[in-house]
Amino acid sequence: MKLATLKNGAPDGRLVVVSRDLSRAVDAAAIAPTLRAALDRWERCEGDLRALAQRLEEGTAPGAFPFDPAQAMAPLPRTGQFVDASAFLNHGNIMERAYNLTVKKQEGVPILIQRQSDDFRGPCDDYPMLDEEEQGDFEGEFAVIVGDLPMGSSPAAAERAIRLVTLFNDMSMRRHLFAELQLGFGFIKAKPATVFAPVAVTPDELGDAWVDGRIALDLRIHRNGDWFGNPNGREMDWSFGELLAHLAHNRDLRSGAILGSGTVSNRDAATVGSACLAERRALEVIATGAATTPPLRFGDRLRFEVLDAAGRSLFGAIDHAIAPAAIPSADPA
Amino acid sequence: MKLATLKNGAPDGRLVVVSRDLSRAVDAAAIAPTLRAALDRWERCEGDLRALAQRLEEGTAPGAFPFDPAQAMAPLPRTGQFVDASAFLNHGNIMERAYNLTVKKQEGVPILIQRQSDDFRGPCDDYPMLDEEEQGDFEGEFAVIVGDLPMGSSPAAAERAIRLVTLFNDMSMRRHLFAELQLGFGFIKAKPATVFAPVAVTPDELGDAWVDGRIALDLRIHRNGDWFGNPNGREMDWSFGELLAHLAHNRDLRSGAILGSGTVSNRDAATVGSACLAERRALEVIATGAATTPPLRFGDRLRFEVLDAAGRSLFGAIDHAIAPAAIPSADPA
Repeated sequence: MKLATLKNGAPDGRLVVVSRDLSRAVDAAAIAPTLRAALDRWERCEGDLRALAQRLEEGTAPGAFPFDPAQAMAPLPRTGQFVDASAFLNHGNIMERAYNLTVKKQEGVPILIQRQSDDFRGPCDDYPMLDEEEQGDFEGEFAVIVGDLPMGSSPAAAERAIRLVTLFNDMSMRRHLFAELQLGFGFIKAKPATVFAPVAVTPDELGDAWVDGRIALDLRIHRNGDWFGNPNGREMDWSFGELLAHLAHNRDLRSGAILGSGTVSNRDAATVGSACLAERRALEVIATGAATTPPLRFGDRLRFEVLDAAGRSLFGAIDHAIAPAAIPSADPA
Repeated sequence: MKLATLKNGAPDGRLVVVSRDLSRAVDAAAIAPTLRAALDRWERCEGDLRALAQRLEEGTAPGAFPFDPAQAMAPLPRTGQFVDASAFLNHGNIMERAYNLTVKKQEGVPILIQRQSDDFRGPCDDYPMLDEEEQGDFEGEFAVIVGDLPMGSSPAAAERAIRLVTLFNDMSMRRHLFAELQLGFGFIKAKPATVFAPVAVTPDELGDAWVDGRIALDLRIHRNGDWFGNPNGREMDWSFGELLAHLAHNRDLRSGAILGSGTVSNRDAATVGSACLAERRALEVIATGAATTPPLRFGDRLRFEVLDAAGRSLFGAIDHAIAPAAIPSADPA
């Protein structure tokens, strides 16, 4: 089952079911007005949503209409908790090697980073960047959206609580990143608004590509129409269930919590490319002593997409441009 | 105007208006079913809510009933963004002095910490702590809840976006705190669920105690019935407007975002006491070389309250006990 949220002027948008080929959608308001509402009572909604999805596939869903990703918000435009992992150790290793960093990791314990969850952008919306001095960067990542998960849950229980899987661009402002890391209190200016794919899918939509709680598919990234990378999700060093269990160590997770994978990164990055500018720049530093790939500029267009085994777009594409933010004029007060 | 959220089995509860003396409440569902909904369309709701509050004061609100703080959830039981500042530099200075720490602060830039926002506890609910080895601690803090605030807003515009003010206990698990600080990616295990006062109030309820975007009132804290401290909010080194403007540097804040003050801490802590165990312990280390105040134990009861100029409880009291968390039994899978 594939779900999306369409713009309707309200902060949470309106929930629709989307066909497997992403060509058509149907309003789900009779079941749940928003994805948040559906997640809050998933046990009662899931069957009805799946039945509606089935009718949509069969062409018998009344009121079906063409699905336009430009009208999509993030599947959950805001939620109660968003945590990003850094679960591809290969990425961190490259960064530490290029810049002689030493991150005081604890063996076997994943890095988890608390993030804002009220400013998720739609897949085709211009991304407002303060200025080019921010050293904007993208990070292609997978994410899971969970139901309620009590403190102390096992990885297996956590994996069973995964309701939906999606794709996002973890936009990063590198100018602030090292200073905020050194301060130690996590990211604020380094990690503003986040951009999500138009569609979130139930794990069964991944078929054989859902392997050990990981998404064994390529994340295809283009910058300004040029191939940038297609690293695969299978090399994640912890499964999503393991990451969620770490997060739930001493806290309850509530329906709608989102956990990100961290920048997808593969050991053969020289061949498959990277999912962020920083990693490519780090590889350039390691290879030649200097980074040549430039940070994001206004007008840059980014595309992120994942194809399923049948070659169909799984989550739809994130396809957005970087634009100057509109800043309020000076305050007379 | 004073607002609260009562338990009704749903994650967002139901919105009520509470009388100034906290004795009575009236359902606000005809105006907005939840505080989230009210904040999303504050311009349209505020007048009606204030009119209802006025009728409640006059004794003419139909269906008014006694207000029971034990039935209260956090005013916003979950929201899209919660950021905690560390805006009383006195607290950080004491901690750095006691433990020979050097936090790489940037002069004039406040520390802001991204936090979970899906697990806010009600004022009288038992607090589930994993075990006593967590070295549990409380932190008494003020918070503001804002409306939409665009990126790049000035401190004055940010202060005008403050809709509500409240009080919370920023529960902290000190066992994890230094390790997470050293890692650099912020707090996860060190900062699980947060506990809020029963009532949030519009800034006008503070009267003359709302000074330069600060709350010039004592935060009175008792542990197991014993006075622990009553530091005042006026010594905050940045106003809430200034903190919000820092946070909105390169991000839009959405209605319902919560900003905390950081542990309230005064320069005459030797006289007025502290708002957390860690600060008292640090003062003991500085004075005698060793900390004697113990961390939180199961069964400890904590009380946080603020009185207004007339001696009335402004937000109602947080009055809760520390209890062992119920951990799911081992997973057969």
